[in-house]
Amino acid sequence: MRRGHHRRRSSTPSVDFGVDDEEEEESEAQMKCVSCKEDYSSRDAGTCRECYEEASETEEELKREIEDLKAKVNFLRFWSPSQHLHQQQRTTPFFSDIVLVASHDESGKSTPHPVPVPANRALLASRSPVFRAMLENEMEESLSGTIKISDVSYEALRAFVTYLYTADACLDELMACDLLVLAEKYQVNHLKTYCEKFLISKLNWENSLPNYGFAHQHNAKKLLDAALSLIMENMDKLSKREEYKELVDKDPRLVVEIYEAYLSKQVNTAVQKDPVAKA
Amino acid sequence: MRRGHHRRRSSTPSVDFGVDDEEEEESEAQMKCVSCKEDYSSRDAGTCRECYEEASETEEELKREIEDLKAKVNFLRFWSPSQHLHQQQRTTPFFSDIVLVASHDESGKSTPHPVPVPANRALLASRSPVFRAMLENEMEESLSGTIKISDVSYEALRAFVTYLYTADACLDELMACDLLVLAEKYQVNHLKTYCEKFLISKLNWENSLPNYGFAHQHNAKKLLDAALSLIMENMDKLSKREEYKELVDKDPRLVVEIYEAYLSKQVNTAVQKDPVAKA
Repeated sequence: MRRGHHRRRSSTPSVDFGVDDEEEEESEAQMKCVSCKEDYSSRDAGTCRECYEEASETEEELKREIEDLKAKVNFLRFWSPSQHLHQQQRTTPFFSDIVLVASHDESGKSTPHPVPVPANRALLASRSPVFRAMLENEMEESLSGTIKISDVSYEALRAFVTYLYTADACLDELMACDLLVLAEKYQVNHLKTYCEKFLISKLNWENSLPNYGFAHQHNAKKLLDAALSLIMENMDKLSKREEYKELVDKDPRLVVEIYEAYLSKQVNTAVQKDPVAKA
Repeated sequence: MRRGHHRRRSSTPSVDFGVDDEEEEESEAQMKCVSCKEDYSSRDAGTCRECYEEASETEEELKREIEDLKAKVNFLRFWSPSQHLHQQQRTTPFFSDIVLVASHDESGKSTPHPVPVPANRALLASRSPVFRAMLENEMEESLSGTIKISDVSYEALRAFVTYLYTADACLDELMACDLLVLAEKYQVNHLKTYCEKFLISKLNWENSLPNYGFAHQHNAKKLLDAALSLIMENMDKLSKREEYKELVDKDPRLVVEIYEAYLSKQVNTAVQKDPVAKA
């Protein structure tokens, strides 16, 4: 986390911590920083040694807490049947008493012979209220021992089940979208947040409109807000984009919402600039 | 984590970070600490402002990581049948397909009508290699659907199963000992470490000998070392203790190990004090 910050010193002005610069101007005394070992003048003064020592203690305590939590996560991870199958070279998966199948792929075409993904009823029920309702009551899925899931690829379904076991997933943008859809459908909030964070980290002007539409469709509020503010920073270029024209045809309501958000933002900024206008 | 440290300032000498005191003596310049807002002289100098800002960033990053890990732990916690029973006012526990019973209490007396603790096979197998071996292969327990556990109270057994589901336990010293024994028997290392840490935090001169014996019996290495070093700090009082006489009768070998450890410690200290003696 320590960056070679002394290149920055001149370039970025450091935040004002309320030290009165005029007052400090006079003294040109130097002190040695116990962390970077360089001399600093009073205008660059940070903390006294005791505050530094306490901050270091705090950092150590936080790191210990992180180690404990990581150990807890490892303990709580559930054996993934596929992992186990792999690790133990077994022919039957580990305590699986139900299978999930991708009945239709993303294109909506029904898959003739879908590869089943083995899972455990109690595990599914403990991770998703939708699965719980399905499996506690004598629904078709519970009786047949097969849960059909539509509009998903085998890869996405497998990743979904693995996440339910381990809280781990290897994401790219496509997989993050597929898993967000499943997380939304089966109310696995932890996974939904995880995918949303990933997609937000990948946002740029090029993909902001598609992400805006996608977020709208799947109630991904954080992703929606992030995409929207990115779009509003580029309103002049908006109407020229291909995706814009498509969105106007496909779902003009969403385009209206962009303009409404933009306008109310402009009004707010105006009010802040000129509070009199408020009255 | 910030303690009111200015009472401490005079009392506790701060660690030497290699600042040359003679050199600093001359300048009596003061700087203002951005953290505690008090003036400090160069002999109390801590960090420059940039190191302070970077340390603060680091602290924020660590805190965010802790939040993420806590959310992950909550997601990975498994529904405890009893929790669920309680929460949902149901008569049959949640996806339980096996029961554990305390066949004999701590005193070794067989319990005529033990109350069964419901659990889930996959969960038990994923938390303990001993349960896994039991339940994967067609052992008596797997076929009968009942796992008999001896020398344990119903309360301890229930707490043990709850820990396997949630990685949480409410400990006192007795419960920590009971759970450590079960964790040792069923190879649940995470729980064993958890109980060991708790017992170490409760160590004092009064309970050091019983803890030493207990740790020895159950291969609790960390607890053993902690208890042993506490005992070695009080060797003069050792032989007067009631527990000492009991231990000499019950297991003199353990007493011998105390004296051996004490002697080798004395020899090491002597060598450190007088390196010539080494040669």
